[in-house]
Amino acid sequence: MSPGGRRPGNADTRAEIIAAARLVFADQGYEKASLRAVARTAGVDAALVHHYFDGKSDLFVAAMALPFDPRTVKNEYHGEEPMPYLGEATVEGFLTMWDLAEGTGSSFASCVAAMAANPSVADAMREFVNERVWSVTRGADEDDQTFWHRRALMSSALMGLAFTRYILRVPPISTATPKEIAGWAGPTLTRFRTEAAPEETD
Amino acid sequence: MSPGGRRPGNADTRAEIIAAARLVFADQGYEKASLRAVARTAGVDAALVHHYFDGKSDLFVAAMALPFDPRTVKNEYHGEEPMPYLGEATVEGFLTMWDLAEGTGSSFASCVAAMAANPSVADAMREFVNERVWSVTRGADEDDQTFWHRRALMSSALMGLAFTRYILRVPPISTATPKEIAGWAGPTLTRFRTEAAPEETD
Repeated sequence: MSPGGRRPGNADTRAEIIAAARLVFADQGYEKASLRAVARTAGVDAALVHHYFDGKSDLFVAAMALPFDPRTVKNEYHGEEPMPYLGEATVEGFLTMWDLAEGTGSSFASCVAAMAANPSVADAMREFVNERVWSVTRGADEDDQTFWHRRALMSSALMGLAFTRYILRVPPISTATPKEIAGWAGPTLTRFRTEAAPEETD
Repeated sequence: MSPGGRRPGNADTRAEIIAAARLVFADQGYEKASLRAVARTAGVDAALVHHYFDGKSDLFVAAMALPFDPRTVKNEYHGEEPMPYLGEATVEGFLTMWDLAEGTGSSFASCVAAMAANPSVADAMREFVNERVWSVTRGADEDDQTFWHRRALMSSALMGLAFTRYILRVPPISTATPKEIAGWAGPTLTRFRTEAAPEETD
């Protein structure tokens, strides 16, 4: 390696691309950000970004240190009618993922701290979740308004459980297993997914 | 006023007591913290703390820049059987309170940032809410385990709505009125308050 030069396979290059991606996502949000802008910010060729990352969502997961691969979401939903116990499965999967991340640099608290301190980080996260997670769970029966209404309520229920478990640490939500919590709160998520409607008021 | 001296009525003294209270609550949590320890940390007489603040919860509200007076909670609940639309009233009141705080130094995002960055701040907040807010809502039918189980689930639902409204800003939760959101999520809170039981699994 020439002194100060950047080459494919250099671990520093990957870290520099991730650092550049954080700047670009915070500045432009998830939807508007491009791999080309990240490459430009990092001072590398766009092909090098593609060498390290399998597309924009992969880069976002690395930039935000998210503990999961959003590509797994599709497999759980199949894009068909909601499974029985859909809410339970979603709660258990969501909390298990964050449980595994505790104590690492990608804990729920560190993601929340980044979002609370910087609205543009929160915006990028929302756009990412909408585009890469929720959009693949759309049911055939859901028009746009119903779809986003339901996903907002589901997001709220999931974020509330994680916030109470990892940040406020309120027992028994902080001490139970993800499966137990799924038993308590899963039915609410299922109701939000299958019954909530924008005009509903009771 | 003598140069550098502290006197009752000095606005600086109040600010110094609040700064000292932040240190003491973060160090000792809400339950263990005493007004005497705050006075000692601020370098003032304990009587002066009482002069400015009507007890520990009043001081905590000021120290955390919370946008509400927890003493109002009791009036809404009466300590009796749950009102009809208890969940709706709780959701609407909670979000209205934080709506009014937006743009001030006591926004929901600033409270969350403090809690996410410092676990001891989150611990103090949990102890405060348990002791000053939830404990006055105990129903005659609730044993300890059921009571805390229900309050943890209610906390989770409220925190999730506020997080989705003020930080993730997911429409329609970020754009609807507190009353509309209460219509969507209030029934869940009522269910948690009246039906949730520790052994419930569906």
